[in-house]
Amino acid sequence: MTQEKAFQDYYEETTGSVCYGCGRLNEQGLQIKSYWEGDVAVCRFQPQPYHTAFPGYVYGGLIASLIDCHSTGTAAAAAYRAEGRQMDSDPPLRYVTASLHVDYLKPTPIEGQLTVRATVAEIQGRRTTVKSELYAGDQLTARGNVLCVRVPDSWIKNNAG
Amino acid sequence: MTQEKAFQDYYEETTGSVCYGCGRLNEQGLQIKSYWEGDVAVCRFQPQPYHTAFPGYVYGGLIASLIDCHSTGTAAAAAYRAEGRQMDSDPPLRYVTASLHVDYLKPTPIEGQLTVRATVAEIQGRRTTVKSELYAGDQLTARGNVLCVRVPDSWIKNNAG
Repeated sequence: MTQEKAFQDYYEETTGSVCYGCGRLNEQGLQIKSYWEGDVAVCRFQPQPYHTAFPGYVYGGLIASLIDCHSTGTAAAAAYRAEGRQMDSDPPLRYVTASLHVDYLKPTPIEGQLTVRATVAEIQGRRTTVKSELYAGDQLTARGNVLCVRVPDSWIKNNAG
Repeated sequence: MTQEKAFQDYYEETTGSVCYGCGRLNEQGLQIKSYWEGDVAVCRFQPQPYHTAFPGYVYGGLIASLIDCHSTGTAAAAAYRAEGRQMDSDPPLRYVTASLHVDYLKPTPIEGQLTVRATVAEIQGRRTTVKSELYAGDQLTARGNVLCVRVPDSWIKNNAG
């Protein structure tokens, strides 16, 4: 069995493929990857020892980054699903973050793997709300709520920085 | 005239001095620094080329990280001010993030310096709300609203990961 491609592996060079959070072409970046597991989009990530906040715990900015990129990826993947299309079909559907909300429920231990589980709460035209939960092992430590907005087609074709 | 110390330069080894976002001892980290300018706390940060989202623009996780660490630092600095104390006096006052909200108003250009300007909106016991604006040059591109909570004294003394 070959591993399926992650949502982010479909991003083109003019969009998220260079993203520090999730771009496959950003060698310094976090390269987070998201996959469907049924109707839940799942991202697993191993923090590095230097991703610390206080000693032993993950810094909040990493948690926000995981929730952010995983949510926009999930919004894109859900849009293809809603249209009954594969993620490599045209036109491409890409999302950016309009607002990000994270509730930090308790400190997130840094040793083990983190898992972000996201579901689509609402799709209204070009706006998609994604809710997520972040776990360290089986401990729920943060919740995310992200409003994602689909970028104009012209942006995807023409944006070159 | 010597440069004053940043809020984060007072953090001890058991707390934020190792933070990826703002710890002076985290060599891989962002090492963001915050200073008072009157009643506004200001953080200036030069994004690196790899901090990209789409080509030419800063990724949202960096913006969230700047707002997060700058806000907890501002909450701490404001608590000392409220007690009429210097930041090197005992007992230390340290804050963590309970919730982080960022509104991304428009894409943030990556070339120039970013400035986060924060003010304390409310102090209620151990909970401090910090509101902030992020500028790229003179362009307002994001707004933050962070609920910070003071950590227990025992945490500062005893936490060793």
